[in-house]
Amino acid sequence: MESKIKVGIVGGTGYTGVELLRLLAVHPQVDVHLITSRSEAGKRVADYFPNLRGHYSLSFSEPSLEDMLACDVIFFATPHGVAQSMMSDIIAGGGRAIDLSADFRIRDINTWEHWYGQKHACPELVEQAVYGLPELNREKIKEARLIACPGCYPTSIELALMPLLENQLVDPSRLIANSASGISGAGRQAKMDNLLAEAGDSFKAYAVNGHRHLPEIEQCLQDIQLAANIQSSASPAITFVPHLLPFARGIHSTVYANLVEGDATNLQALFEERYSAEPFVDVLPKGMFPQTRSVKSSNMCRIAVLQPQERGTVVIMSAIDNLTKGASGQGIQNMNIMFGLPEVMGLEAPALLP
Amino acid sequence: MESKIKVGIVGGTGYTGVELLRLLAVHPQVDVHLITSRSEAGKRVADYFPNLRGHYSLSFSEPSLEDMLACDVIFFATPHGVAQSMMSDIIAGGGRAIDLSADFRIRDINTWEHWYGQKHACPELVEQAVYGLPELNREKIKEARLIACPGCYPTSIELALMPLLENQLVDPSRLIANSASGISGAGRQAKMDNLLAEAGDSFKAYAVNGHRHLPEIEQCLQDIQLAANIQSSASPAITFVPHLLPFARGIHSTVYANLVEGDATNLQALFEERYSAEPFVDVLPKGMFPQTRSVKSSNMCRIAVLQPQERGTVVIMSAIDNLTKGASGQGIQNMNIMFGLPEVMGLEAPALLP
Amino acid sequence: MESKIKVGIVGGTGYTGVELLRLLAVHPQVDVHLITSRSEAGKRVADYFPNLRGHYSLSFSEPSLEDMLACDVIFFATPHGVAQSMMSDIIAGGGRAIDLSADFRIRDINTWEHWYGQKHACPELVEQAVYGLPELNREKIKEARLIACPGCYPTSIELALMPLLENQLVDPSRLIANSASGISGAGRQAKMDNLLAEAGDSFKAYAVNGHRHLPEIEQCLQDIQLAANIQSSASPAITFVPHLLPFARGIHSTVYANLVEGDATNLQALFEERYSAEPFVDVLPKGMFPQTRSVKSSNMCRIAVLQPQERGTVVIMSAIDNLTKGASGQGIQNMNIMFGLPEVMGLEAPALLP
Amino acid sequence: MESKIKVGIVGGTGYTGVELLRLLAVHPQVDVHLITSRSEAGKRVADYFPNLRGHYSLSFSEPSLEDMLACDVIFFATPHGVAQSMMSDIIAGGGRAIDLSADFRIRDINTWEHWYGQKHACPELVEQAVYGLPELNREKIKEARLIACPGCYPTSIELALMPLLENQLVDPSRLIANSASGISGAGRQAKMDNLLAEAGDSFKAYAVNGHRHLPEIEQCLQDIQLAANIQSSASPAITFVPHLLPFARGIHSTVYANLVEGDATNLQALFEERYSAEPFVDVLPKGMFPQTRSVKSSNMCRIAVLQPQERGTVVIMSAIDNLTKGASGQGIQNMNIMFGLPEVMGLEAPALLP
Repeated sequence: MESKIKVGIVGGTGYTGVELLRLLAVHPQVDVHLITSRSEAGKRVADYFPNLRGHYSLSFSEPSLEDMLACDVIFFATPHGVAQSMMSDIIAGGGRAIDLSADFRIRDINTWEHWYGQKHACPELVEQAVYGLPELNREKIKEARLIACPGCYPTSIELALMPLLENQLVDPSRLIANSASGISGAGRQAKMDNLLAEAGDSFKAYAVNGHRHLPEIEQCLQDIQLAANIQSSASPAITFVPHLLPFARGIHSTVYANLVEGDATNLQALFEERYSAEPFVDVLPKGMFPQTRSVKSSNMCRIAVLQPQERGTVVIMSAIDNLTKGASGQGIQNMNIMFGLPEVMGLEAPALLP
Repeated sequence: MESKIKVGIVGGTGYTGVELLRLLAVHPQVDVHLITSRSEAGKRVADYFPNLRGHYSLSFSEPSLEDMLACDVIFFATPHGVAQSMMSDIIAGGGRAIDLSADFRIRDINTWEHWYGQKHACPELVEQAVYGLPELNREKIKEARLIACPGCYPTSIELALMPLLENQLVDPSRLIANSASGISGAGRQAKMDNLLAEAGDSFKAYAVNGHRHLPEIEQCLQDIQLAANIQSSASPAITFVPHLLPFARGIHSTVYANLVEGDATNLQALFEERYSAEPFVDVLPKGMFPQTRSVKSSNMCRIAVLQPQERGTVVIMSAIDNLTKGASGQGIQNMNIMFGLPEVMGLEAPALLP
Repeated sequence: MESKIKVGIVGGTGYTGVELLRLLAVHPQVDVHLITSRSEAGKRVADYFPNLRGHYSLSFSEPSLEDMLACDVIFFATPHGVAQSMMSDIIAGGGRAIDLSADFRIRDINTWEHWYGQKHACPELVEQAVYGLPELNREKIKEARLIACPGCYPTSIELALMPLLENQLVDPSRLIANSASGISGAGRQAKMDNLLAEAGDSFKAYAVNGHRHLPEIEQCLQDIQLAANIQSSASPAITFVPHLLPFARGIHSTVYANLVEGDATNLQALFEERYSAEPFVDVLPKGMFPQTRSVKSSNMCRIAVLQPQERGTVVIMSAIDNLTKGASGQGIQNMNIMFGLPEVMGLEAPALLP
Repeated sequence: MESKIKVGIVGGTGYTGVELLRLLAVHPQVDVHLITSRSEAGKRVADYFPNLRGHYSLSFSEPSLEDMLACDVIFFATPHGVAQSMMSDIIAGGGRAIDLSADFRIRDINTWEHWYGQKHACPELVEQAVYGLPELNREKIKEARLIACPGCYPTSIELALMPLLENQLVDPSRLIANSASGISGAGRQAKMDNLLAEAGDSFKAYAVNGHRHLPEIEQCLQDIQLAANIQSSASPAITFVPHLLPFARGIHSTVYANLVEGDATNLQALFEERYSAEPFVDVLPKGMFPQTRSVKSSNMCRIAVLQPQERGTVVIMSAIDNLTKGASGQGIQNMNIMFGLPEVMGLEAPALLP
């Protein structure tokens, strides 16, 4: 058997970091070689994350280009701004990278700089980054050297709308995505708002006036149209309202769209067919709706579609684990595709229930 | 001082029952006289609900007309179907009633029978029942003998849309209400789906194809138009998707509507003005969004309105405690109005936080 | 009617602060006059705590001696170290204070300094401070100028052991208290460990090697012996292990003690008699055990006692709301006693359930 | 490669059933052949448990002896009483069984019948059943045809006390186990007490007067003494108080014992040495305490031991996932041992965190 893929992880102390480590610990073709953290350098990973005791002997280290280039692929599990500061050297040095952050997701540099409030440090690589949504870009991912892994909310919303946009069944200019995320999506940072005594036992909307995932979603919806050779249609515009759920893991999106008048497409059949070959999209049978607990810890996206009261509004619901299909699991799915491995390798365990 | 109001409660073993008892225990002008439960007759209320130990010496009793007519007002905290079976006798006997169930909310008997799947036992009283939303019907409530207390979801949605519909600012035919409720809304029944190990730590939509609150909401939205003398407008139609939150108390609705083109109304000012005299509607300042924990245990509805990205969609968010403003608290608010008491009496305690 | 008590609160931004404000908002004989916070000075209290909107027009202010002395009583809702730095001036100026922190709870200055790791700034007032456990010290509280309000864990444990120690029914040298607290007990501070994604959905012991409440508990257990004129007995020694519960409010203590051999006291009757006149201690009937939700938001302590398997170990369980009977509610109970008001005034609302 | 183990599961609709299915879905040497359920016979397993969609094509079937004997091993994931009614035929037919219920755990039939309130249907096989705690009985498990898999609480308590009893370091007659379990331990049954709105956000003790796991624990503690050739010591007696945690998964036990006077054993070293070769017992380094989330979904038991304040009481804390090491995972560990597979096979995934 060939040698395993040497994986490096930059920024291993956050939730996407520990999720990568959890999943890669049992990936049969991966050897985690490097985990960096400036703040925890020298500390054993297994002493930092108690669930990893017995699984890793590695310690966090300071990031160095040499160490990174000794890996076959580098995952960035960092806040935005970090990957872009290191990426030129990695790519120039022949490395490959899967960035879980937002650094390379948006092709229009001005848009990125507007929403993220800082100058982009590596605009020259944005164009060649592949948006790592396998259900849209599988072929490009195979050849990619730099993957911009989709955001958690965008993944759930884009998969919900893809079959409808590809078939021009809805008005793309009046879309609504009402999403709710577990609090791990807010990252592993000591913020008052994210305390158990603040966010527990409660529910609220946030960032209603504009969440950073909005331009990413709209760009991808347009890419879906382009990939389907839809030219005349209006540009996708979506009202996106994220909410905060009082638990750690899970995203649920309820997406609303106005059906094109007179259309009689069987939406259930359309969705089932569109995703029949997709290993990580599960279209639920009629009458069943997704719940976040049915995907917890797994890379699966479960989707339901229906047209309530036979009125003109279609409702699509999708559920993913924001840390898995919404981040680290999708990153590994991309890695599997890039390295010619079975796409589901290391991602086959069922969701944890209850 | 005059004598206190003698209150009777039919069906005291559910969550709206215990909420009535909690609130009425400290209402200065109420004497709870009667609490009925067929299944628990003879058992002391304080032995049944441990939070009420020391507050009530009363026991549950079998419901009897005589006992009910000895009360100044009867609350029905029963599943639908019960209040309608007793109401003729109560009203004929000169009693007054506040029904927290759905029995008298919908004026069209056919609609009621369609959605609730049973024959209505008391259609003759439906017409004279007053829909107990004080923000819409305060004057009628003063004279009412029979109050149909609004449902929990409807309360949160109707208050969110009222100022917009009254001023014809949105297209009433394409409304969307994305709501989420704590599980106490499902009632106090031993159902598998409502177990902690099933519903905890998860989120899902349910009843997407049609929830019983849908016709109630649409009727009230039309009543709002009528009360504002809006005749030409289209009938309100709403897509309503309820979701289940993994905790006991709280409803949050995120409501979407298409703004009439060209309008430049200051929505924040409109909402603030509309509700300035309302004791239980709190329009939040710009940039602040409601969270369910800010209303837990209180009768308050907190609302925010905004127009994200200055696009054509207005988003209104509202939060209530489903057992308080969404049921028992609103019932007591109605009682206060009916009996000429200060509307806020017994409902003044701030929400519990954290 | 006489004028209301002017209350000042130092340190109003934490959980005991907001709990004082919640309770005092509906206390009929209190006027909250002053709420200090250095960090939030100038901000309206109701803008800081969304549950208080509509209840307070006051803003946070910088603490000043003059303002404090203009109050009839000052509550300290501060971390330890703050009250002791201001107390001399307040007492010298004729003020009265109820300190919810640990500053004046422990009479032995060395012990205090050892456990709290700092020099005590006001040792001269420690002796005259009254430990504000009404069930033990009601008479002293009436005359007190400075109340050291008991800790949350200590309250739950001391009430559990009081009847047994007073009657010399257990070996005081081998006591065990296994306690569990909601996370609001950890205070309102942005710490990683207290994030919802860290502390939610989990359970653990902490501070097993020595929690600061240990010396306070042992001192009070000795005071209980002294008050009962028990001189010959061994000094109380307790193994105290606190645990962290994944929700905001509630403490549950399970206390174990070895019964003196040959004793045949009816423990249930003993506890019922001991607490029959206590408004905030509820001895549950045989076979019923306390649960934290039955005291949430209330000042009640519910207790059960039993001797499993008729072996020699007695088990006492107690439940309180750590923010109410374990802090702010007990503080108000002390205030009521100090000012000659009915002890239960403002504390009569039943617990919130569900 | 040899053919896989054909596994049958009797009673697949409960939480231990779905946990077996989750774990066995990725066990490389297992083929799940049979899943029985009288109530759900004919229904596809993957339609019943949404997390298993895509993992099983099997349907529930009525249990039949023929089908069971076609399996290499049968797991019983049933309430007590079921396994004993089928076991004679299975063993007589040459089958092997791993019973997750309590049917064969207690050797004294009278004791079993007393605590479980029914006649034992298969007393003749009790003697030959092996108590499936690998850390105590690994050699016997290799040869066993019938495994009585330990209870969840017992596993956590027995592993906590084993090193101390084996070395006679504590008084076995005054042990205390204060345990807390997630609500999945109560089974998957529609009971009012287990509703989210009843058990959520709360904590309580239950079954304080005697939980069915008590005789099992005491029997095993005695077996530990016997296995260590300790004859003179007193019989183990334990006060066991279980508590209910407001989430689905996890058991935490805090165990207290009186150290033999004068002993100076290094407890930390003792525990580390005792469990150094055990794949599923992790003795935490000094100062670190177990938390349930560090073992969620995994078969690991994490343990800490210390002697607070250097007094005479030792405190041992242990955490397991009640459905994994406390039930189904331990069952699979037993199966691996019985079939000569690597003991950790299929159980190597790290715990899910957060």
